Amino acid sequence: MKADMEPKEFILHGYKCYLPHVSIDCAIFGYHGQQLKMLLIRPFFVDGWCLPGGYITRTETLTEAAGRILEQRTGLKDLFLQQFYSFGDPGRAKTASFDKKKLEDFFGLKLKEDNWLLDHTISVGYYAIVDFSAVSPQKDPFYDDWQWCDIAKIPQLLFDHNEMVKAALKMLQLQIYHQPIGYNLLPKKFTLPEIQVLYETILGKQLDRRNFPKRLLSLGIIKRLDEQRSIGPHRSPYLYKFDKRKYEDALEQGVVLAF
Amino acid sequence: MKADMEPKEFILHGYKCYLPHVSIDCAIFGYHGQQLKMLLIRPFFVDGWCLPGGYITRTETLTEAAGRILEQRTGLKDLFLQQFYSFGDPGRAKTASFDKKKLEDFFGLKLKEDNWLLDHTISVGYYAIVDFSAVSPQKDPFYDDWQWCDIAKIPQLLFDHNEMVKAALKMLQLQIYHQPIGYNLLPKKFTLPEIQVLYETILGKQLDRRNFPKRLLSLGIIKRLDEQRSIGPHRSPYLYKFDKRKYEDALEQGVVLAF
Repeated sequence: MKADMEPKEFILHGYKCYLPHVSIDCAIFGYHGQQLKMLLIRPFFVDGWCLPGGYITRTETLTEAAGRILEQRTGLKDLFLQQFYSFGDPGRAKTASFDKKKLEDFFGLKLKEDNWLLDHTISVGYYAIVDFSAVSPQKDPFYDDWQWCDIAKIPQLLFDHNEMVKAALKMLQLQIYHQPIGYNLLPKKFTLPEIQVLYETILGKQLDRRNFPKRLLSLGIIKRLDEQRSIGPHRSPYLYKFDKRKYEDALEQGVVLAF
Repeated sequence: MKADMEPKEFILHGYKCYLPHVSIDCAIFGYHGQQLKMLLIRPFFVDGWCLPGGYITRTETLTEAAGRILEQRTGLKDLFLQQFYSFGDPGRAKTASFDKKKLEDFFGLKLKEDNWLLDHTISVGYYAIVDFSAVSPQKDPFYDDWQWCDIAKIPQLLFDHNEMVKAALKMLQLQIYHQPIGYNLLPKKFTLPEIQVLYETILGKQLDRRNFPKRLLSLGIIKRLDEQRSIGPHRSPYLYKFDKRKYEDALEQGVVLAF
């Protein structure tokens, strides 16, 4: 059976192709300028917003499944998805008024009480960060809207997805001390204030103006160019760029940043 | 149905009480002196060593399940278990010669091809660290031996458990920069070299002799006592102890250490 089955077939017999009891949800952070947002979607059969999610086929890895689900739901692809936590509290799906009847009416079918989609499910969380001005999600048969929502203004989400957003942000904030970020979030050539604002926005706190660039420079992740940007009278800060090789080494091996 | 069912009933109908397709495995680090070890157990029905693991009932959280499983398998309880990663590669269980026949013979039963224990399972990894000289694991009906194995000398384990050990160590090494450790691993009063050796053993590298204690002291996690330990002529280093309240705040809120 193929993974891209029809919605009706998926609802009734999806468990033959997908693993029951395990799902994946994706927390996609969007950064641009000084703003950090989260990608939310709205399933047409439940009243509310949630993270894009789906099920795992029996032949793919969790990370492959996360990439496929995200692409199916939103059209975003090739993101650097990182697993951050698995959620499994009993009744975690019950916090939403999962509208079984609306689903039945829309697809013209009857769900049994023991339908696989209604059973207890553990969800594995993945996160990624993208430039939200550069990507535009699409819709799929199960979702009728999407938005980039300010991280500080996230409404009450369906299921346990507020908890997921919180855990994803915590992991991103932790990870930022050990893996470089910014390669796809900043212009190719950037100023020190631009990269500092990126880190400060994600961490939600101010960082030391001297120590921060010093540390990045001493690790070799960024390097100064012989080029300045004129942004006003007597103001022409130097431009910097990432050292791709050192950046990738740091991604692979991990670093310890402390600002 | 009770969670502590008989082995035979568990093998045949465990899925009625436990979630199929999801399990938990525990990577228990043991520290003492300058040694870091991993707790391994040997299932009697497979030829090899693995991490203690088990299944999740439909009424408990993942963390509750991890605690219960660890206690059932080893007798260790009240450990500070932290989730680190979920593993789900297709065929991850196939790397072991899971001895279906031995299991059938031992329990005098016949397993169907679609028995729930033989199906694809995602495993959620938890880790903890204990003083290995202070605890002594026990056995349960499914395991006939255990050992504390040197972290550098771990043999080829069953399933994908070598990958789990690697991921758990990576997470412990990352976590150590953001959450204090040592409260149950060091004597109540310790010297600076003692706590430094703990961190160095876990990180597998030397740390700066000046910066390391400076950072711990400036965070207030440890404090110096008006007491010295005599360890030889002209050698009586000061003793230190953890500030329990600051330690717990740091556990809760996270810190950033860089040595």
